[in-house]
Amino acid sequence: MSFNTFGHLFRFTTWGESHGPALGVVVDGCPPGLPISEEAIQRDLDRRKPGQSRFTTQRREDDQVRILSGTFIDEADGVLKTTGTPISLMIENTDQRSKDYSEIKDKYRPGHADFTYHQKYGIRDYKGSGRASARETAARVAAGAIARAALPGVTIRASLVQIGPHKIDYARFDWDQVDQNPFFCADPVAAKAWELYLDGIRKDGNSVGAVIEVVAEGVPPGWGAPIYGKLSADLASAMMSINAVKGVEIGAGFEAAALTGIDNADEMRAGPAAPYFTSNKAGGILGGISNGDPVVVRFAVKPTSSIISPRLSVTTANEDTEVITKGRHDPCVGIRAVPVGEAMMALVLADHYLRHRGQTGREGGIGY
Amino acid sequence: MSFNTFGHLFRFTTWGESHGPALGVVVDGCPPGLPISEEAIQRDLDRRKPGQSRFTTQRREDDQVRILSGTFIDEADGVLKTTGTPISLMIENTDQRSKDYSEIKDKYRPGHADFTYHQKYGIRDYKGSGRASARETAARVAAGAIARAALPGVTIRASLVQIGPHKIDYARFDWDQVDQNPFFCADPVAAKAWELYLDGIRKDGNSVGAVIEVVAEGVPPGWGAPIYGKLSADLASAMMSINAVKGVEIGAGFEAAALTGIDNADEMRAGPAAPYFTSNKAGGILGGISNGDPVVVRFAVKPTSSIISPRLSVTTANEDTEVITKGRHDPCVGIRAVPVGEAMMALVLADHYLRHRGQTGREGGIGY
Amino acid sequence: MSFNTFGHLFRFTTWGESHGPALGVVVDGCPPGLPISEEAIQRDLDRRKPGQSRFTTQRREDDQVRILSGTFIDEADGVLKTTGTPISLMIENTDQRSKDYSEIKDKYRPGHADFTYHQKYGIRDYKGSGRASARETAARVAAGAIARAALPGVTIRASLVQIGPHKIDYARFDWDQVDQNPFFCADPVAAKAWELYLDGIRKDGNSVGAVIEVVAEGVPPGWGAPIYGKLSADLASAMMSINAVKGVEIGAGFEAAALTGIDNADEMRAGPAAPYFTSNKAGGILGGISNGDPVVVRFAVKPTSSIISPRLSVTTANEDTEVITKGRHDPCVGIRAVPVGEAMMALVLADHYLRHRGQTGREGGIGY
Amino acid sequence: MSFNTFGHLFRFTTWGESHGPALGVVVDGCPPGLPISEEAIQRDLDRRKPGQSRFTTQRREDDQVRILSGTFIDEADGVLKTTGTPISLMIENTDQRSKDYSEIKDKYRPGHADFTYHQKYGIRDYKGSGRASARETAARVAAGAIARAALPGVTIRASLVQIGPHKIDYARFDWDQVDQNPFFCADPVAAKAWELYLDGIRKDGNSVGAVIEVVAEGVPPGWGAPIYGKLSADLASAMMSINAVKGVEIGAGFEAAALTGIDNADEMRAGPAAPYFTSNKAGGILGGISNGDPVVVRFAVKPTSSIISPRLSVTTANEDTEVITKGRHDPCVGIRAVPVGEAMMALVLADHYLRHRGQTGREGGIGY
Repeated sequence: MSFNTFGHLFRFTTWGESHGPALGVVVDGCPPGLPISEEAIQRDLDRRKPGQSRFTTQRREDDQVRILSGTFIDEADGVLKTTGTPISLMIENTDQRSKDYSEIKDKYRPGHADFTYHQKYGIRDYKGSGRASARETAARVAAGAIARAALPGVTIRASLVQIGPHKIDYARFDWDQVDQNPFFCADPVAAKAWELYLDGIRKDGNSVGAVIEVVAEGVPPGWGAPIYGKLSADLASAMMSINAVKGVEIGAGFEAAALTGIDNADEMRAGPAAPYFTSNKAGGILGGISNGDPVVVRFAVKPTSSIISPRLSVTTANEDTEVITKGRHDPCVGIRAVPVGEAMMALVLADHYLRHRGQTGREGGIGY
Repeated sequence: MSFNTFGHLFRFTTWGESHGPALGVVVDGCPPGLPISEEAIQRDLDRRKPGQSRFTTQRREDDQVRILSGTFIDEADGVLKTTGTPISLMIENTDQRSKDYSEIKDKYRPGHADFTYHQKYGIRDYKGSGRASARETAARVAAGAIARAALPGVTIRASLVQIGPHKIDYARFDWDQVDQNPFFCADPVAAKAWELYLDGIRKDGNSVGAVIEVVAEGVPPGWGAPIYGKLSADLASAMMSINAVKGVEIGAGFEAAALTGIDNADEMRAGPAAPYFTSNKAGGILGGISNGDPVVVRFAVKPTSSIISPRLSVTTANEDTEVITKGRHDPCVGIRAVPVGEAMMALVLADHYLRHRGQTGREGGIGY
Repeated sequence: MSFNTFGHLFRFTTWGESHGPALGVVVDGCPPGLPISEEAIQRDLDRRKPGQSRFTTQRREDDQVRILSGTFIDEADGVLKTTGTPISLMIENTDQRSKDYSEIKDKYRPGHADFTYHQKYGIRDYKGSGRASARETAARVAAGAIARAALPGVTIRASLVQIGPHKIDYARFDWDQVDQNPFFCADPVAAKAWELYLDGIRKDGNSVGAVIEVVAEGVPPGWGAPIYGKLSADLASAMMSINAVKGVEIGAGFEAAALTGIDNADEMRAGPAAPYFTSNKAGGILGGISNGDPVVVRFAVKPTSSIISPRLSVTTANEDTEVITKGRHDPCVGIRAVPVGEAMMALVLADHYLRHRGQTGREGGIGY
Repeated sequence: MSFNTFGHLFRFTTWGESHGPALGVVVDGCPPGLPISEEAIQRDLDRRKPGQSRFTTQRREDDQVRILSGTFIDEADGVLKTTGTPISLMIENTDQRSKDYSEIKDKYRPGHADFTYHQKYGIRDYKGSGRASARETAARVAAGAIARAALPGVTIRASLVQIGPHKIDYARFDWDQVDQNPFFCADPVAAKAWELYLDGIRKDGNSVGAVIEVVAEGVPPGWGAPIYGKLSADLASAMMSINAVKGVEIGAGFEAAALTGIDNADEMRAGPAAPYFTSNKAGGILGGISNGDPVVVRFAVKPTSSIISPRLSVTTANEDTEVITKGRHDPCVGIRAVPVGEAMMALVLADHYLRHRGQTGREGGIGY
């Protein structure tokens, strides 16, 4: 969790800019002997890929992943498996068309990181967004596919649950719907309504925010650790590190603030083999440690700041100006953040799984 | 950010349980030559100390801090200063009265970490909450006082902005009010109204959640770093690591999800020396890097799970039962989380300040 | 391994100066449920304690350790055990007699860290050596006792194998002799001869260096990891971090440079259950990973720089001078480094054990 | 310093095997605005490249480096510079000729890491050495070229000072000779004599060890930090992490053990602007912190274990056998370790430089 590396035992380091030759990720600490394949990684990458509907950027990025290290073909079964050493994944940038940057060359884009990058590094790199490009999230998704392979028995899924002011109806929540609409939305009725709404936003040269919910089922009790190694703290860091994210909550989240202790507590009952909770306001985490219930995280994505409507801005010489950000931008970056949220959940869990196993010698709680 | 340590260059490690002889913190990486004193640390600790009004637990904890290492008296001016080596701070536990634990000895408390600790560590330590006790936050507050000393020019303040469903009116926001009421609330009218509300909660043997807002002014542009070292990501981790916190947001936070790009972008204007933003929806952070505006973080605290109303639960032998948590618990743990939030803000900023200076050789942005 | 913390999963942080009220260590990441006791820690501390023979400093330091956190009494068997949360150990400084520092107040001591501390921190703290005092090693020894408890089946022992130019005869090597002489020396004949030699050194107001060999038996194959997580690299860092250490070697060490591949390779033979090596030039480590043979490390300790013979030096005002370091210093700091070396070996192994178990789910190699 | 990552603020992560498509390194935390070029990196790589004399392996590896990220062309001067974000460097493997591995498929090579990798990871990857291949050091050398650019005023050079039992004569030490002979040896007379010696070793199908000395001049006082962040401890870890290294020493190193305090102490004298030392037994480091003198490190490389002379070994089925390692192996891997040692010195210093600047705000000591 230092600059471009995330995780402790299962850790990954991403690199690359949208306007360079390639981007990639190095996954370190992966258990040996796990079957992985470029195809499985590609499946996850393809879900994040732009240009799949009119609601995402029309840039063409093939996002073709290559495994450069850390695997071998097991002669016993002919399957590609991890060796336990660093897995290097690379995605070449293929759509580096020469753009006209004259509009933004000397102008900061409001709400964009180009001002703060300039301040921090003393560098004015107006061509593309450098590391601030959402393209970096492709590397996370690739790493997340490896993390999933390291988490047998855990199912991680995500859904867009809000776009602009429009929320889903949880009564209609159906995971099977997520890949049936361009919004990764578990509520098919909401997804249908959102099409019209987002068409309007897009045609106005505007953009809009969103909320994504990520759920991990099958996490045993015992992962996570007090105090600064809380599962919730690492999930908060993980989700907040995604581009444009401004809020993260676990379980009932901010709504818990409005509840009383009587209403908020998840009561317990004796189960056939172990106790269970009658509700999951906790989002599967108590005291920073998983309790066996689904781990539930939501994060808020702000509307993309790159819009073609003119905004007041300033030149690099500190003079008032207006700026219009042309180019092929997502009207709602939150949509493509859905597979990214899944990946970050997988990456956090894989790390905590190994850390828990390291300290206790168990896979999960005392009965696991 | 590994188990009980937080931070990279400016880092701290906390230890201790509420029912042991003491608790404490080791602060490492602090710049040398900073004036600090037990008095200054004590001032911050006294704000967090329980028993200061009827709205916090009536436990008596003196929270008297001792500096055990890392300082020297400068013979030039007679002032106690940091040496640059680890500063060890210890707080002895003085109110370890022998309690009757028979009620909870064999029963899990719903919403409490005792179930997950038992699962993780295989240990049933029903006396007190072990590391899950909010008493650990005293160590953070002590460390935070050191961090403040390392941040000249930065002012960090916090306010309770919501208790249960009742929010403050930002039109009445006045920092000078914060220490004038038992809620650390910047809105005096709200604070007055809350007294009645919380008296009711308390008399019902219930508890309630809260939202805290922390603001850091004077942070120069340039602190923080892409991608996993984002200032926002570390703040999210820091706040989420506080007991009972279930949500964190920066600037407009979850509200940004409902906004359009036109409404959400903070426009820029030329200032006398440097550009400024006409609004602060970003909460002072763009692309994970501070932009010179106040850094604004809010976090949601759930209602304490330890309430005297009976709740359905399970015994350690997996049999249905009911549990009542007696003892002197806070009806709203969010109140005492206010100084804790300030401390965590200071600790994150001090780390990012040093990391930025290390990488760039500058104190802040290109003009700083 | 950042400033005052060492280790990854099993990690510890030390604090304190020789002239402050106390020093201590926080051990984090320890497996839960391990029996530990102040008595067991004290036994190791007492071996390091000064004043046990005329060959170590005559300072009286009781080095009485207190466990402040991280343990509980298991009601099932009445035994004190680790909880899995931070174990804080404190040793109060009892012999802080007011000394006359006028001789060294304004003079650097050649070969001593006071010059570099002054340069680094801008602080001239001539009273004691601050963190550079060998007294810090008491904290390591205390932590090492916890590490030993986390390493069942592993036996760690050390011996002084050279003092000044005088080496032991390995033909006489007998671990049972180590605690029978004031040098922790496995060769009783050498130990006898060294008494006379070191008496001479001491009477001359001089000091002398030493070499310590540390051996860990019972380490299974598989601990350690390529490339920067090599067991050998962490052992090198661990031993080099001990005061006055200027060299570290594994197995044949520097002698391996003079050998040919034919002479240096440890050949293998089939054993009853697994292969074994016919020699151990590798010191139990191949490619940074343990091979099942005893792990063998040697480290060189320079002669203490604090001697009463006058040495050319410089004042803090950069004027030529002479300096004599009075006080009660060890004529050979290497002697008391023996238990410190054992502790560092235990601490490195405990960390690698947990890291290996975390990544692979195994306690050792494929057959383990 | 966790598995495949080294460093804290200036850190790098290597990946890749000798028999995969490529290997590489990601350098993170580099200061922005530093001029770098593929040419400069290539120059260092070419010194490490095999096949440059008959004394190194005849494998043909072009070791052509590509910069994939983290740089931009400064429009002001047309120079390629670092952006401050991760620098990804890749070297494709070009000489992956299909070899006949039947000899070693089921046999462990004595002294080689294949046994321990098999034990640790449960994987038998007999084709090449995986991560244990010395080819990984190309990635370090590439990273080291970046580190050099981050260290203005520091000159880092290295020399082979011993090969087998034959040491150089320091009276003839001349840095200008290092690139004039196939041994990177500063003593031209020794280098000449070594040719005959190593020809004999090579013709015998044998191999031999070596000692390398690395010297950094221009390091200001103040870099490094107590206790586990000692410059010496990180250098020990860095050098010990190089393939086949079995010993590391600083300054007088193991010889210091044989000296008395009178003989070992570097005395000080007043210089024109600051004190200086009349000798450098300390190797430029006191208390883990640089003292302004040249930093001097030596490390011992064992003879390569891959030799064509038959050695007793064991099959993977635990049966006695003999093994001959054919292929194109270095008769003395120590030769090509010379530029690797320089790189590791640069990488350690760059990290400590930034850490020191972060904590203190200074570039070096109090006068710097």
